[in-house]
Amino acid sequence: MQRNIRLTLEYDGSNFKGWQVQPSQRTVQGELEACLQRLVGVPVRCIAAGRTDAGVHALGQVANFVSASALCVAHIQRALNGILPPDIAVRDATEVPLAFHSRRDARRREYLYRIGYRRRAVGRNYVWWMRGGLDTEAMQKAASHLLGHHDFTSFCVAASERENRECHLLACAWHHRNGEIHLQIEANRFLRAMVRSIVGTLVQVGRGKRPPDEMLEILATRDRRCAGPSAPPQGLFLKRVTYEVPLVSSGG
Amino acid sequence: MQRNIRLTLEYDGSNFKGWQVQPSQRTVQGELEACLQRLVGVPVRCIAAGRTDAGVHALGQVANFVSASALCVAHIQRALNGILPPDIAVRDATEVPLAFHSRRDARRREYLYRIGYRRRAVGRNYVWWMRGGLDTEAMQKAASHLLGHHDFTSFCVAASERENRECHLLACAWHHRNGEIHLQIEANRFLRAMVRSIVGTLVQVGRGKRPPDEMLEILATRDRRCAGPSAPPQGLFLKRVTYEVPLVSSGG
Repeated sequence: MQRNIRLTLEYDGSNFKGWQVQPSQRTVQGELEACLQRLVGVPVRCIAAGRTDAGVHALGQVANFVSASALCVAHIQRALNGILPPDIAVRDATEVPLAFHSRRDARRREYLYRIGYRRRAVGRNYVWWMRGGLDTEAMQKAASHLLGHHDFTSFCVAASERENRECHLLACAWHHRNGEIHLQIEANRFLRAMVRSIVGTLVQVGRGKRPPDEMLEILATRDRRCAGPSAPPQGLFLKRVTYEVPLVSSGG
Repeated sequence: MQRNIRLTLEYDGSNFKGWQVQPSQRTVQGELEACLQRLVGVPVRCIAAGRTDAGVHALGQVANFVSASALCVAHIQRALNGILPPDIAVRDATEVPLAFHSRRDARRREYLYRIGYRRRAVGRNYVWWMRGGLDTEAMQKAASHLLGHHDFTSFCVAASERENRECHLLACAWHHRNGEIHLQIEANRFLRAMVRSIVGTLVQVGRGKRPPDEMLEILATRDRRCAGPSAPPQGLFLKRVTYEVPLVSSGG
């Protein structure tokens, strides 16, 4: 009997070329699928809620795979944590209905972006370090302009021409935390490199290079060249993925 | 004119063979002295308050060097941070009297040891991960037995026979922090691998393998074989070094 297993994953993106399998590159999906194959004996394909880029971390990535394995979910979690490399950890494993699809069924994704003002050695792979203070009030005003339903073409790395670039932003707010500033950003979906493009542009606002209201004009142009440069990947964390209904575990 | 410069350093010990220069090994002292030589043009010798072991981190290591350089301390800090590898950061640079000696003049050293209960990917190099809960009340009781003046031979890696092994412990307490437990430990001085030997033994108490009062017996034996195994280095941070008098900066 086929079963569908949903995993909640944490990973340190520093030494990965992102989530998605690529020939002769170390990827999270590649490492995970190799370990799953060792566990269940046959090749397994994993689907993730968000295909994070190289260097981007995850605290709560969600991925699912379909398998005929009879192993109980607690055993799957324990066994995977025993054989996965130290930069990937399984935080949870649950059996879900066969129809469940991590990416298609995700209703909201939440990301965190960390900026620090002090050159750090400890934890340097988890924050974007920059000199000097930023005008966080201006950055907050600029961030608020992005809330709601917009075409985010200006904030994405161009993919196919026909792709739908509309996203609904549910949260976009800066918080002060232990001498750092953190952007908490949540949307129904994100386009490729969207959070990093937004952060890079908001930092330009924080440096006084753009007025906060310019965010509306950038959105309206639907032209990536109008936004700021992408922020580096090491400050970015996929924090949480939310699904519409509580998942029903059928045991296992 | 010779000047004495005191640096406060942060480093990530993961990729260092400890503080002290060793032939054909990457050490903090080695990297720092190479950068100082680039800066001032002649070989420079650095003295540190604590010679941390391989894999041990520092948030507030103190080191000093004597030089005829006329560079102002703000420039020294900025320039070093520009050329040091990313896993070492200079947090402060101050000019101090020529007689100042980072190690000899240090009055108190404070270390932090972090234990986590969940397998982590993000930040895995900064915590000792272990399964299951520990009896932290027993660990706290055991830790309290170490306070005050004792011969800590049982908790050190044997060095020379004639060495003085007496230390005065000023603080030794566990704190709960975000799902982790942290040992805050402060003494006038520490012996080689002393914090890690203490943590390893306290964890045995936390697992119920030893009663808390056995700490007194272990101290009395003055035999390293009576204590528990050393905890791994990645959970350990040299947090702060304290000197008797406020340092007088003569500008520069």
